[in-house]
Amino acid sequence: MYDHRIESLRKILREKHLDSLLVTNFYNILYLTRFKTLVSDEREAFLFVGKKDFYIFTDLRYRINNPKVHYLSHNKKLTSYLSDIIQKEQITSVGVEADDLKFSEFTWLSKTLKKVRCKPIENIVLQLREVKEKGEIDKIREACRIGDECLREVIKTVRVGQSEKEIAFKIEFWIRKKGHDISFSPIVAVDENAAIPHYDTKSGLGKLRRGSLLLIDFGVRYKDYCSDMTRMFFIGQPSQDKINIYHALRNVQKKGVEGVSRYSRAKELDSYVRRSIEKDRLSNFTHSTGHGVGLEVHETPRISQKSKDAIKPHEVFTVEPGVYYFGKFGMRIEDTVYVGRDGKANILTNYSKDLEVIT
Amino acid sequence: MYDHRIESLRKILREKHLDSLLVTNFYNILYLTRFKTLVSDEREAFLFVGKKDFYIFTDLRYRINNPKVHYLSHNKKLTSYLSDIIQKEQITSVGVEADDLKFSEFTWLSKTLKKVRCKPIENIVLQLREVKEKGEIDKIREACRIGDECLREVIKTVRVGQSEKEIAFKIEFWIRKKGHDISFSPIVAVDENAAIPHYDTKSGLGKLRRGSLLLIDFGVRYKDYCSDMTRMFFIGQPSQDKINIYHALRNVQKKGVEGVSRYSRAKELDSYVRRSIEKDRLSNFTHSTGHGVGLEVHETPRISQKSKDAIKPHEVFTVEPGVYYFGKFGMRIEDTVYVGRDGKANILTNYSKDLEVIT
Repeated sequence: MYDHRIESLRKILREKHLDSLLVTNFYNILYLTRFKTLVSDEREAFLFVGKKDFYIFTDLRYRINNPKVHYLSHNKKLTSYLSDIIQKEQITSVGVEADDLKFSEFTWLSKTLKKVRCKPIENIVLQLREVKEKGEIDKIREACRIGDECLREVIKTVRVGQSEKEIAFKIEFWIRKKGHDISFSPIVAVDENAAIPHYDTKSGLGKLRRGSLLLIDFGVRYKDYCSDMTRMFFIGQPSQDKINIYHALRNVQKKGVEGVSRYSRAKELDSYVRRSIEKDRLSNFTHSTGHGVGLEVHETPRISQKSKDAIKPHEVFTVEPGVYYFGKFGMRIEDTVYVGRDGKANILTNYSKDLEVIT
Repeated sequence: MYDHRIESLRKILREKHLDSLLVTNFYNILYLTRFKTLVSDEREAFLFVGKKDFYIFTDLRYRINNPKVHYLSHNKKLTSYLSDIIQKEQITSVGVEADDLKFSEFTWLSKTLKKVRCKPIENIVLQLREVKEKGEIDKIREACRIGDECLREVIKTVRVGQSEKEIAFKIEFWIRKKGHDISFSPIVAVDENAAIPHYDTKSGLGKLRRGSLLLIDFGVRYKDYCSDMTRMFFIGQPSQDKINIYHALRNVQKKGVEGVSRYSRAKELDSYVRRSIEKDRLSNFTHSTGHGVGLEVHETPRISQKSKDAIKPHEVFTVEPGVYYFGKFGMRIEDTVYVGRDGKANILTNYSKDLEVIT
């Protein structure tokens, strides 16, 4: 268990004049207690952080030997447990995760827990997760290292005639065979498909031809922590035009990584990268510059135009500018970086970004 | 596109005196429009079903050639699009999915869309999805058939000394190599691990020994539709006690499938199965009898004590009684069944349920 994390959370709760928090988000529960259920998108567990103690609730499908875990059933429901705890710990206010709890769940809770004030709050655990501990950085670093190794192995086997699906499968197979997981389904996109940033490789039909451009965007999940990296490859010598665009983009990405230490607001870093792309007269940059990486492959800080997040030491996020020519081709270069104590970004995804031609 | 599905939805909306519905659930959007984003658990798409037309909203990472798809950006937000449509179609009420929309999203929408009434409703699209069309049944049937074939192939390779993880990986690999997907991470549980219904194979260390009992619970996703099946295997001749329990459980499961035609309420079917287990003096049955299967591996109808769902023709769900002796062993037998026009259950997962000993 991570008692110091629970303590940090309690400190924030006190600042917000809250006695307790009902944590519903799968990753937040995992972060605070190490407890997880099989899937992240069904409501199978709850964590209640009270003034004195904390309590995990799930059902008997997840039976384990852990005194902190209590089992919900038709006869003993969550609200029944909570009412008892609220009385025992003399709790008057319960924070709930407004960015996770469904509207109908909130209605049900606030109706049932009549004696307390249910207060919707946002980003409270995410805010803690944003600043990584050393152990977390180590896991992300290892996830990135595994990703580097995977790409080096898989790229050796890439040949003209192979389908995007086949290459994506090889990546996934390599990672799973090593006993790890993928952090998301690999995006492998050829030529005009690479102009769609979130191209659906599983539904696609693209194949590598001579002269093709190949985008590979994938990540590893190692001990619950994610990596995320995108690299470009050229099948046979590319045109001078493509070479120029690649080098310009690579330069933008390098400047983005270097820019991390100069900006304290994620929004400013995004603007800086956006301006660099415009200055080089590259195409429209249609997505954000990056996103936090941790237990989730997309978390805070968001490096985007509408972000209110700060850039600060011990954050981990991606820097991933891209250029997209719809119907023609696209390129993206993405690293996962870690912000050191000195505010400088350290690249964790170390696969080379030199222009790589596959012959 | 599925215009008849949109029309069926509009009919329900009119009954509820609603002009429109904002659909946010990933699977509901997929069901109504075939449109999907890469992940189901991040908010990357919205569907607005108005009085006359419908509109899909996503961002430029998903750029495609489809006139129904509109792109959200920092400059043109969802609420800005919706305000225009609300004015154009003279809409006064907007239903929102209370069982999908986060509390904070609801607050934001109802604050921003001032001129209309935002009404939280539940299960409106799920209710449509509950009754399957022929094309949907065909896909689920094929998913089940692939699962049968997979298990036949994989079980041939199962040997003493193998780990749960290794067997789970083989199942997953087999399915992916055929170009399909898994509907959930396979649960492969040996001996005492099989007493935990939602055992986490990925974190487990179990290995097959001589005399082991092996539970395999897995599913295939074929063209977006799921299957779900659990089978038991015995490594070497099992004890008479285990043989008796297996046969009793098999009989309960058979009676459960046959019981489908006798009950019109899911809750009644669950009670019937629960009573059968008690009558045979088997252990506590700690989970529900079954769940709907379709685009999601867990959907309505829920065959449980608290279910309000009906059993009716053209539904697809699981029948999966289990017996669990914590710290010792557990057994579960699960089929995916389809309710025919005559109300009778047809088993779609056809892998044999005869007691199978692996020597």
